[in-house]
Amino acid sequence: MSDVYIAGVSMTHFGKHLDRSLKSLAGEALDAALADAGCETAMIDAVFFGNCVQGHMEGQDMVRGEIALREHGIAGIPVVNVENACATASTAFHMAVNYVKAGAADIALAIGVEKMFADDKARMFSAFDGAWDVHEVERSKARFAAMAEGVEVPEGSTSPRPYSVFMDIYAGFCRMHMREFGTTQEQLAIVAAKNHEHSVNNPLSQYQKTFSVDDVLAAAPITYPLTLPMCSPISDGAAAAVVCNAAGLKRLGAERARTLRVLASVIQSGSNRDITEFDRHASRLAAQKAYNQAGLGPADIDLAEVHDATAMGEIIELEALGLCELGDGGPAAERGETRLGGRLPVNPSGGLESKGHPIGATGLGQIYELVMQLRGEAGARQVEGARVGLAQNGGGIVGIEEAVTCVNIVGH
Amino acid sequence: MSDVYIAGVSMTHFGKHLDRSLKSLAGEALDAALADAGCETAMIDAVFFGNCVQGHMEGQDMVRGEIALREHGIAGIPVVNVENACATASTAFHMAVNYVKAGAADIALAIGVEKMFADDKARMFSAFDGAWDVHEVERSKARFAAMAEGVEVPEGSTSPRPYSVFMDIYAGFCRMHMREFGTTQEQLAIVAAKNHEHSVNNPLSQYQKTFSVDDVLAAAPITYPLTLPMCSPISDGAAAAVVCNAAGLKRLGAERARTLRVLASVIQSGSNRDITEFDRHASRLAAQKAYNQAGLGPADIDLAEVHDATAMGEIIELEALGLCELGDGGPAAERGETRLGGRLPVNPSGGLESKGHPIGATGLGQIYELVMQLRGEAGARQVEGARVGLAQNGGGIVGIEEAVTCVNIVGH
Repeated sequence: MSDVYIAGVSMTHFGKHLDRSLKSLAGEALDAALADAGCETAMIDAVFFGNCVQGHMEGQDMVRGEIALREHGIAGIPVVNVENACATASTAFHMAVNYVKAGAADIALAIGVEKMFADDKARMFSAFDGAWDVHEVERSKARFAAMAEGVEVPEGSTSPRPYSVFMDIYAGFCRMHMREFGTTQEQLAIVAAKNHEHSVNNPLSQYQKTFSVDDVLAAAPITYPLTLPMCSPISDGAAAAVVCNAAGLKRLGAERARTLRVLASVIQSGSNRDITEFDRHASRLAAQKAYNQAGLGPADIDLAEVHDATAMGEIIELEALGLCELGDGGPAAERGETRLGGRLPVNPSGGLESKGHPIGATGLGQIYELVMQLRGEAGARQVEGARVGLAQNGGGIVGIEEAVTCVNIVGH
Repeated sequence: MSDVYIAGVSMTHFGKHLDRSLKSLAGEALDAALADAGCETAMIDAVFFGNCVQGHMEGQDMVRGEIALREHGIAGIPVVNVENACATASTAFHMAVNYVKAGAADIALAIGVEKMFADDKARMFSAFDGAWDVHEVERSKARFAAMAEGVEVPEGSTSPRPYSVFMDIYAGFCRMHMREFGTTQEQLAIVAAKNHEHSVNNPLSQYQKTFSVDDVLAAAPITYPLTLPMCSPISDGAAAAVVCNAAGLKRLGAERARTLRVLASVIQSGSNRDITEFDRHASRLAAQKAYNQAGLGPADIDLAEVHDATAMGEIIELEALGLCELGDGGPAAERGETRLGGRLPVNPSGGLESKGHPIGATGLGQIYELVMQLRGEAGARQVEGARVGLAQNGGGIVGIEEAVTCVNIVGH
């Protein structure tokens, strides 16, 4: 693809921010991304704003981005409101990249913001060490609204509604994978323990607490074989990226060493359910296109942020992305290949499971992590010598299909 | 801009379709646009889906387009859900055009679908000849959700809430325009009567009934000086466009004579309120950019579809677009310049006032009209010799700013 650059990124702390508004989170991410890029507000040509639940939570639809960003100085330029379930922020990023490629903007901002906790949601219940709110039972139908008819809740569901509908679906994937490839619950626990260990070194992560594999296995069950630490939590947070073309880089006076290049950006939909349809797996198709765009293969990827809405998600996605062999995702985790220091560190940020999952911001949180790593600014969780990173972010279920998956590859 | 073509368009009937679902309207528009373009479903590379109120009306957010289109055969390709208040469909069109320009798709579909009436909305009240439902009082906060704090309801409001908040704002514009330029209520009525007369020849229009200027003036008052026939109604409907690059045209085997070119596509935000800030008027800025892109000026425009959410909207927009002098919008209508057969026919479709205003579909309904006219397929409402058309579609209010306005120029 023609050159599109990432001049700056930002991410707020992901977590439970009862004292913060959506506008406040948006403003923090905006200001930090601009500061990181050395960009004045007036230099931005267009904004792509991702959000999922504000309509449900606050009744604000229609022009969410314009309203969230207006008091932070964004006015007089196009703002496009983009929504694609858990892949919303990656979709916003993809649109910003292509808007720049089209020549419609020299400098564009992609920003994702989500406020999932609300003061009047006292009915959420905390489980797991008193800190982890998995369920929001009332009012927000956000989780349901990501799906439509055709989705069957697998048998064996043991967890409360509504959040668990997704966890039930993932549990079905788990059991299929276990049957087909011999993947074990312990391997899932190894993935979760790894991601929680990674996030101890991520100050922006929702949780910074290690768990042994035994801890994970002994934690509250959600739907067999998933336990609570294997599942992503409810989160508030925001993340952003400033993307630009060569003219934009010049206007920004950006240091090339801190500037990254978007080597590939792909959105895809397709199957995500049935391993017998592996060739049609959305992430597999997206990855193939992305590798083609980048002129790279899986062996060139130095680190990956993937959509571990559950630990099983990480395993499935790594296989679909060609980053390990089909069926080898569990064993690869067991061999330590996907941990920091391993062959291919996966979710060094802590992933959705531990860093958190503010759905409209998650994909840009992944881009933030890639940029930090590729710049060598990731501190104690730095992947040594990282030159190329891949982010995969999926969202929504329609019938038996994955509604959308986004794969972005970033490098120097 | 590099060449992007419109290979096919469609529009359902706009109106009150209590027996139709959003999916049904979406499917009709999809099939008709594909048929018009000679396009197989499998040839579409990407979809941009516009919708505003489904979250409020049906609880479906997140992946609205994927779900609406799945059973009509759209799967395995990117679907991007786009929202921008009343300018949603134009935003989807703009994104599709730029996605093609970016080389991310050869053939892309922009589709806008809105279902604003619901069975359980019996509390809507009908006024005006027993056929015109202006107000939906309960449940849907859609109209409110297009705005945020900073919007003051002008004094003198006489009409019921909530729909009328927008009408109140327009009424404020009217009174300002009357004071500043001597625009009269009768001129507003002339605009409305003209648009209702145009739509008599549009079988897809919500209303097909003529009104004399006296009829309009004598109709139910909304907020002075606006009467009911000067205001756009609540509507259900869908519209779509197939856009492509030269490679896409080839794949479609499209007849060049029936194919149109997107000469300019611009999104802008800015002031829309204060005539003292005319230089910052969003539509004025958008039009300047669009004329630059197209290498054309106002004198080259043969017809225009503009955002007449009220008759005052048409006057303001024509002035901002440079299609008449500032302050001359009312007199120009009085001189008959904007009617069919006049110097510059405006809203030959009937406009929002009479064709209807299904908010997430409206902008693509305008594109549909331009294409019909420029192909010479507009039947009894044909603008003779039309070669270049302009569509302007605005949406949302943030503080005192227009959230977004879109200007597209289409020609051969």
